[in-house]
Amino acid sequence: MKVAILVFEKLTALDAIGPYEVLSRLPGAEVQFVAKEAGLVRTDTGALGVSADRSIADTELPEILLVPGGEGNRPLLTDEEVLDWVRAAHEGATWTTSVCTGSLVLGAAGLLDGVRATSHWAFLDRLARYGAEATSERVVIDGKIVTAAGVSSGIDMALTLAAEIAGSEVAQAIQLGIEYDPEPPFDAGSPHKAPPAIVELVRGAETGS
Amino acid sequence: MKVAILVFEKLTALDAIGPYEVLSRLPGAEVQFVAKEAGLVRTDTGALGVSADRSIADTELPEILLVPGGEGNRPLLTDEEVLDWVRAAHEGATWTTSVCTGSLVLGAAGLLDGVRATSHWAFLDRLARYGAEATSERVVIDGKIVTAAGVSSGIDMALTLAAEIAGSEVAQAIQLGIEYDPEPPFDAGSPHKAPPAIVELVRGAETGS
Repeated sequence: MKVAILVFEKLTALDAIGPYEVLSRLPGAEVQFVAKEAGLVRTDTGALGVSADRSIADTELPEILLVPGGEGNRPLLTDEEVLDWVRAAHEGATWTTSVCTGSLVLGAAGLLDGVRATSHWAFLDRLARYGAEATSERVVIDGKIVTAAGVSSGIDMALTLAAEIAGSEVAQAIQLGIEYDPEPPFDAGSPHKAPPAIVELVRGAETGS
Repeated sequence: MKVAILVFEKLTALDAIGPYEVLSRLPGAEVQFVAKEAGLVRTDTGALGVSADRSIADTELPEILLVPGGEGNRPLLTDEEVLDWVRAAHEGATWTTSVCTGSLVLGAAGLLDGVRATSHWAFLDRLARYGAEATSERVVIDGKIVTAAGVSSGIDMALTLAAEIAGSEVAQAIQLGIEYDPEPPFDAGSPHKAPPAIVELVRGAETGS
């Protein structure tokens, strides 16, 4: 099963690597990191270089497409070469997936009109502008489109998808393999749970508002 | 605050990227990915290339050292050049940390004798051979040594460390920024929770036994 993860300059690393760590453990998975041009891309902090091993033009259309988020995906929202490829990949894919603001790219490609979908909590308004029925659920499946909320939610999304694809025993084995038995030290991972002052601080930092 | 993440061929990506995503968001953090030799390393699946931007010989000793796991760290357990660097980094560091089997490298460097520490659940016996007081807790702090359990636990470890370094408000802001409000689709992330047959299957796959 071919999985293509679309990367770009200034992606948020965990958006891509969380699901990669799960999906690459599916029996028969062949994961590829692809970008508009092959080569090294730097993540949003600048601190990490990730290899895009193939250009999208050189990539066989995948069975699973994954689009991560990060401030660097804003230029993709008006990049017709990338959006055409996303549309073509979606057309042939079994599953079209996103994490965080990756859903904005699916929206810009016209894939989310009337579709229930999610994104990072600070970007749900923006997601709705693409005609999506934006929801703050952590993982949303609507037909073959699977979207996840912010950054770390890609792990939950990928485990959910793993169960859809290979059954719950395989998904549980992957979960155990990555020892995903979370114990966050605080209960502050959602805007409904974090202190309001922290929510406003983070909203400003994330959206530049 | 300088953070050095030691990478190597066949590392487990999420071991490194989970904590990176948290620690790189600390005010003043400067994260570097380093390896014995600078250049691209491939992860344990072969599907992902990560840039080691500096060789350890060329890296200023960090304030935080992070050693991830993955089958590729077994050669490091007898690599005196790497172990010497780990010892020197630990000596000067404020925090010496590991995720998953990264703790075996700390053990091989002689840092865990009599120290409470953890590792991936399938490797706790092996960790104890280095004199560590091996425990199955998810995040263990003993003095300046902070070890985390398998793969995904590095996120919990790094948020715990973020709170120690910068206070709980900063840690909560980071948690909210990465929307870490986990909703695993199964309760199978620990050997105490997963069905026994799955535990034995995964133990065999992880340890080659």
